[in-house]
Amino acid sequence: MTPPSDHTSRSVRLGEVHRWTQTSIPTLREAPAEATTPSHQLLVRGGYIRQVAAGVYSFLPLGLRVLEKISQIVREEMNAAGAAELRMPAFVPIELYAGTKRDEAYGDLLFKLTDRHGRSVALGPTHEETLTDYAKSAVTSYKQLPLTLYQIQTKYRDEFRPRAGLLRGREFVMKDAYSMHTSVEGPGGLNEVYDRLYEAYVRIFERCGLGFTVVEAEAGPIGGSASHEFMVNAATGEDTILICPASGYAANVEKCEIGERPWSIADADAAQPLAEHHTPKMPGIDAVASHLGIEPRGMLKTILFKAGRAGDDPAWVLATVRGDHEVNEGKLRDAVGRSLTLADDAEARAAGFAVGYISPRAATERGCQLVIDPDAATDDAWATGADRVDHHVTGFSWRRDAGVSSASAANLAGVKVADIRNAKAGDPSPKDPASTLEARRGIEVGHIFKLGTIYSEAFDFAILNEQQKKTTVIMGCYGIGVSRTIAASVEQRHDDRGIVWPAPIAPYDVLVVVMDPKKPAHAEAVATITDQLRGAGLDVLVDDRKERPGVKFKDADLIGMPIRLTIGDKALERGMVEFQVRAGSAERQEVPLAAIVEPVLGALGG
Amino acid sequence: MTPPSDHTSRSVRLGEVHRWTQTSIPTLREAPAEATTPSHQLLVRGGYIRQVAAGVYSFLPLGLRVLEKISQIVREEMNAAGAAELRMPAFVPIELYAGTKRDEAYGDLLFKLTDRHGRSVALGPTHEETLTDYAKSAVTSYKQLPLTLYQIQTKYRDEFRPRAGLLRGREFVMKDAYSMHTSVEGPGGLNEVYDRLYEAYVRIFERCGLGFTVVEAEAGPIGGSASHEFMVNAATGEDTILICPASGYAANVEKCEIGERPWSIADADAAQPLAEHHTPKMPGIDAVASHLGIEPRGMLKTILFKAGRAGDDPAWVLATVRGDHEVNEGKLRDAVGRSLTLADDAEARAAGFAVGYISPRAATERGCQLVIDPDAATDDAWATGADRVDHHVTGFSWRRDAGVSSASAANLAGVKVADIRNAKAGDPSPKDPASTLEARRGIEVGHIFKLGTIYSEAFDFAILNEQQKKTTVIMGCYGIGVSRTIAASVEQRHDDRGIVWPAPIAPYDVLVVVMDPKKPAHAEAVATITDQLRGAGLDVLVDDRKERPGVKFKDADLIGMPIRLTIGDKALERGMVEFQVRAGSAERQEVPLAAIVEPVLGALGG
Repeated sequence: MTPPSDHTSRSVRLGEVHRWTQTSIPTLREAPAEATTPSHQLLVRGGYIRQVAAGVYSFLPLGLRVLEKISQIVREEMNAAGAAELRMPAFVPIELYAGTKRDEAYGDLLFKLTDRHGRSVALGPTHEETLTDYAKSAVTSYKQLPLTLYQIQTKYRDEFRPRAGLLRGREFVMKDAYSMHTSVEGPGGLNEVYDRLYEAYVRIFERCGLGFTVVEAEAGPIGGSASHEFMVNAATGEDTILICPASGYAANVEKCEIGERPWSIADADAAQPLAEHHTPKMPGIDAVASHLGIEPRGMLKTILFKAGRAGDDPAWVLATVRGDHEVNEGKLRDAVGRSLTLADDAEARAAGFAVGYISPRAATERGCQLVIDPDAATDDAWATGADRVDHHVTGFSWRRDAGVSSASAANLAGVKVADIRNAKAGDPSPKDPASTLEARRGIEVGHIFKLGTIYSEAFDFAILNEQQKKTTVIMGCYGIGVSRTIAASVEQRHDDRGIVWPAPIAPYDVLVVVMDPKKPAHAEAVATITDQLRGAGLDVLVDDRKERPGVKFKDADLIGMPIRLTIGDKALERGMVEFQVRAGSAERQEVPLAAIVEPVLGALGG
Repeated sequence: MTPPSDHTSRSVRLGEVHRWTQTSIPTLREAPAEATTPSHQLLVRGGYIRQVAAGVYSFLPLGLRVLEKISQIVREEMNAAGAAELRMPAFVPIELYAGTKRDEAYGDLLFKLTDRHGRSVALGPTHEETLTDYAKSAVTSYKQLPLTLYQIQTKYRDEFRPRAGLLRGREFVMKDAYSMHTSVEGPGGLNEVYDRLYEAYVRIFERCGLGFTVVEAEAGPIGGSASHEFMVNAATGEDTILICPASGYAANVEKCEIGERPWSIADADAAQPLAEHHTPKMPGIDAVASHLGIEPRGMLKTILFKAGRAGDDPAWVLATVRGDHEVNEGKLRDAVGRSLTLADDAEARAAGFAVGYISPRAATERGCQLVIDPDAATDDAWATGADRVDHHVTGFSWRRDAGVSSASAANLAGVKVADIRNAKAGDPSPKDPASTLEARRGIEVGHIFKLGTIYSEAFDFAILNEQQKKTTVIMGCYGIGVSRTIAASVEQRHDDRGIVWPAPIAPYDVLVVVMDPKKPAHAEAVATITDQLRGAGLDVLVDDRKERPGVKFKDADLIGMPIRLTIGDKALERGMVEFQVRAGSAERQEVPLAAIVEPVLGALGG
């Protein structure tokens, strides 16, 4: 046999036709006890995946087909965006982490092994180091940039508690891409390519048939200066997204801005006297508030930070928010304009702070920097720490007890009112004053970052630019959880009978259920149908098992192919087959056996 | 963007068009010092692969494309043979080896790691255990058999000395398949599926454009009862194949049968007297022969084996071959009809054998079983051991000194003449008496085994057959070294300028070299050409670099695409482009810019 040599056969894509009896689809009535999320339950019950070890799964034939369909969409859109695919090894020699210290940052999450010669190797959770090390040797001229390389590859993370099937595994499939540039702005710069890949991501998830939200996000532990997360909308998602329905703005909790909030600290006398209370052994705001007979929102929460580097004499920064709010480090850092770390308890105690009982007074009395969230900057009579271990106060007044007022806030050295907390549902939208933020749940399936020069500096990856000046290469990185996307789709689309795949990522476009595979008329009908569908480039699974119709229909609903065609005697006598769409509540109908392609394509394309 | 919904777009396969400046092809003038084989040198120099650690490589964009093209051919033929693809994890929990003890058998070859909870995990070198463990739970009825499952996956082996690039790596890509049956014979039995996959393998390597030889082989350490190896013919191959040109018979050295060899031990008196020689500190036949002033082929080599299980009282078996031949354990086992192990030196000494100086007399005197290879069963005056440490004899006569003759051999208890040695070039063919065996070098790229019940017994994988009788499942396994096939192809097809890919596995069908990418006429010509080729389903790489023609042509020869089209001013003025085939010595010619598909397809299909 020689390769096809005629024009036609190379440019024709035939669909695939597989038979249930020649593949392995071990459907189960019951999900394993540890499966508590719908995707975990349905993917195991539908014979898509099977656990081999905690967080480690086999992709059974159906599961692998979904993985490959998503991968192919990713590949097409990445290629269309000008990226080139490669495949780096899972093995990452530990020496590659010398400059980034990420082996230490990952800690126990990093799988490590020692080879027979005693060399230490990690199993890559991502590949910034391997890629940068390669690019440093392969990219020697600005003429080779911009360059975007990506791979679709098995990754490893030793999660303490792997869970929810493909949602958080220890061996999983990711698409990771890395872009390289000589500039941030301008043609071929980081921003241009970042925007192009942002658009590619939108097309990828749209083509996968997923409902999703793109949210602004902090860069997280990977570092960098700007990022977006792609979140599949699902009530069962572990991430909270905040959106402004009026403007379309969306961000994760950490990143979400909050609209203008009026605040005011009057110069008038305080309404209540300051009173001290003994509050021993009460861990947390809730317990103290309950003891004092108030709500947490009636308290001030003051958190101690240090500016400057470890080892230096610390410059203390105090951040005060309402008791029911959370300080957001990124916002606080932006408000004070310098890098910060949470204060070490022992160090803070040594410096005289009553850790756990700090009030804003501790800042003003010592002349430390104090930042107050607007919701905490009011004339209410607050409860707060007493700056004395095991004690709180009530009736605290900003002006009387800490010397802060609206007028003075701007003048008093180091006191500032600014948005320094995480956003919540109900907060004013930052984009539309008339609208408030709403909370949604989501599953993160994509994340794109502007890395900047973090990795290129660690690897001394610099080239001569067009002006013959040595320039550190600027990088971006772009991830998609490919195996996770399978689970996210099931979380979003299922019913009480099983999975409901979006057509583009379903293992097969059509399931043909044959009532009696041994009957010549039925076998002929299978051939007639599959020939037509295959010629139209559609993938078909034929359920040719000798099983009762009830078993076959139950399995059909469970595994969730978009369209089911049923070959039965009655309809066949009329030259028809039964046609049913899995999604929605469309009635069964009959379509002509000899003209099956149009109704199928019509239903798939809709 | 919605998925394509019209008939045409689903069933059309467009080719891919990529630009050199948007991918990464780091060609090198020099190969790294450690690269000594042509494939290692050329794949690194051509920018196909890059080493990350010893035996661990990145597949750069070109290398990944070859890997994917081979994988796709494998996939199509495996699917056509009725196999279903899945993907098991690289992680193999060490408990899965409890029944097979292969973790011990692999020893240091097995990469192992310990997770954060202290559980031990191997990185699979193959997946018999994982597959059998899965199948045991998923296959519950004979109705589900036969079933063949396969995967194309990254595998791991901690080779002591990884070498030759992709030929022997530590992280590599394999296709491994496993078939399951209730019987060996009959429809759906092991033999039928084995034969079908044998044919699929032939088609796979034919479609890859490789010259190869299928050889009969022993099953090796993986166990089992029958196997074939698929060897790519290459002078640089590390394996020796013996073939009979007349009959087409081929086998590896261990398995190869030898045609009839006449032998005779007369009852006549011996020609020479027996003489003893002091031969201390002479390791091996060659040293002794040299000391005695004879050739190794003038000596008898007698090797001591034990029949029966370890711990039992041993039944000694002595095997005598000519000094320049090697005893073949498999043939010896077949000749005596029982399992054997090489005797332990200490145990043999304790039983009174003069280890290292044993003559056939040691068998006849003690009444042990003795098997003599035909080439050693002659009336020559032999040199052999003296059954006394540090001594040999010359003038040894089978009849006079060991009591063996042609007439008695068949009668003397336990003495037998049989083929018990490895074949060599020049030996008579087992299939054609007029022909002799020739030696060839090859690279093993495929290996298929009839496993039998080794793994199903270890996992107690048994099902009820059609007669409701519990039957241990019979298995076969079928491997292809996918990444190794890349290297094997380069070993077979290259010249002093670079790689010469067979069209079906080349990264791109066509390389378009643009002399001046900035010239509008050249850019237009690129569009005209790529539109046509893409529409015909052909993959195209456009060398759009601003480089001198000499650099581009050198790189073109090095990376080895089947067809090069060159866009230059002169030809373009006549509406033509230069057309050159990489393989062979065809002259450059010109073809019309507007009708490029036919000549390209003609050259590719040839």
